[in-house]
Amino acid sequence: MPLKHAILALVLERRGYGYELVQRFEERVGPGWRLNPSAVYPALDQLERDGLVTSAARHDGTRRSPRIVYAGTPAGAAALDGWLAATDAPLEPVRSELHLEVAFAQPRHRAALAARLAARERACGELLGRYPRAHGAPLVDAAVVARLRAELAWLADARAALARDDG
Amino acid sequence: MPLKHAILALVLERRGYGYELVQRFEERVGPGWRLNPSAVYPALDQLERDGLVTSAARHDGTRRSPRIVYAGTPAGAAALDGWLAATDAPLEPVRSELHLEVAFAQPRHRAALAARLAARERACGELLGRYPRAHGAPLVDAAVVARLRAELAWLADARAALARDDG
Repeated sequence: MPLKHAILALVLERRGYGYELVQRFEERVGPGWRLNPSAVYPALDQLERDGLVTSAARHDGTRRSPRIVYAGTPAGAAALDGWLAATDAPLEPVRSELHLEVAFAQPRHRAALAARLAARERACGELLGRYPRAHGAPLVDAAVVARLRAELAWLADARAALARDDG
Repeated sequence: MPLKHAILALVLERRGYGYELVQRFEERVGPGWRLNPSAVYPALDQLERDGLVTSAARHDGTRRSPRIVYAGTPAGAAALDGWLAATDAPLEPVRSELHLEVAFAQPRHRAALAARLAARERACGELLGRYPRAHGAPLVDAAVVARLRAELAWLADARAALARDDG
């Protein structure tokens, strides 16, 4: 289920304009995703070209320019239902730029690598502190927490291994 | 460190042609990355445009067309050294299409979602069976193993939660 389908699911739940959909996505899926708001508008355009959503300009009293409000179509509802009825889930790659840095660092880069692992550890800890959320999707939060805890445990082990190699 | 830099690191270790670099990347970084071989050639083109590698056609006896062999330049070595000396490591997003499916599935999709989680569990288990590798980068393998084990534990919990909701 790519991002586009998630945006469609939100629009089908309740019509909305772009920025509001960004906020609703973040509320539902959480801060771990780090949604890029600028990815939402091309997704909406594509959904509209495919006939899965419609858009309408709506004026309100407080803004000079109209807001574009998106609503789902029956074809959109049917498409989403079909995607959510799929039973396969192809494996996603296990990738992190940090893995490449670990794989290609030379002994002379060891201090910099240790600093990078420490920086990542702090960032992971901060993100973990925002979970679980009071009103998030509990199973999604559990997935993010599991991933962050695993990364934190690996980061601690990796830093210890680098320190041993230095000794 | 994006993929492009990893390709540069490989070329600097030893000159090579495209497909050989794909193989060396996979040996070093492992099957979890699921490298798309077609991503390597544009990376090499970009590195060459930036003056970080050079290419030369080399004929050998067994092939009709020449192979393009890439070699690192001094500027490439300096650039890689600079990247590996960086001490920051911005947090990467925690994303999985499965998280979106979990977040947006309706009760009527619960059986399909359970099947998807089971399919992902099998795929994760198979990939985990390929780790740790005899000649891989041990810290990278440890990172992939930690991530896969965390995902497997979450998948088991998520399937149990879905089964409870059905009861």
